[in-house]
Amino acid sequence: MSNAKVLTLIEPAGAQGVAPCCPPLTERTMTAEEAQTASRMFKALGDPVRLRLFSAVASHEGGEACVCDISDVGVSQPTVSHHLKKLKEAGLLTSERRGTWVYYRVEPSVLAAMGQLLTLPAAA
Amino acid sequence: MSNAKVLTLIEPAGAQGVAPCCPPLTERTMTAEEAQTASRMFKALGDPVRLRLFSAVASHEGGEACVCDISDVGVSQPTVSHHLKKLKEAGLLTSERRGTWVYYRVEPSVLAAMGQLLTLPAAA
Repeated sequence: MSNAKVLTLIEPAGAQGVAPCCPPLTERTMTAEEAQTASRMFKALGDPVRLRLFSAVASHEGGEACVCDISDVGVSQPTVSHHLKKLKEAGLLTSERRGTWVYYRVEPSVLAAMGQLLTLPAAA
Repeated sequence: MSNAKVLTLIEPAGAQGVAPCCPPLTERTMTAEEAQTASRMFKALGDPVRLRLFSAVASHEGGEACVCDISDVGVSQPTVSHHLKKLKEAGLLTSERRGTWVYYRVEPSVLAAMGQLLTLPAAA
């Protein structure tokens, strides 16, 4: 009943610190603050184009991609850039400029924490 | 590299059929159709009040709750009802009327599928 497990989600908006956030959804009602943090990430994935782009970065060779690598999702490069920035603001991607291009990478701890948030208890 | 695993997500909008949907995000770029289905569910959880309500239902005794059980999230009963309906439309909750009240229950296969969508490869 009380195998409470505190997950960690990277703080949104690109902060480097790691903040504890959010038990599995099946454990107890989230606090308003927890829901604020977690809903921001779900919202970022709540757009079909953004979700496709996120999967494109997540599945790209080496685990990172620049706008130059993503050309097959049916939207223009400026639109791709816009969505990647939104994903970064939500804490789902990190970025690094190298030469002409900004390379985006999935923040694995956030993805893992979101996954665990959705985990059902083993014996439910 | 190709331990492809097809997940199943209940079709949204309360359909009873189960439709295959969506590999882990890290596996390949989602198709437009897959992204459409999955983003609808993420979007439904992308609102802080809705996410709290979802966690209230998911964590309630017996795995189900009616509006009458949920009074501590700081919004009115009509607002609670509105959000629960949205969650149902997104395929995240199922409902059953019993007497005066409609009881909502988390659709476990959807929650599990969303969780797996976010799963990172073991050796990444």
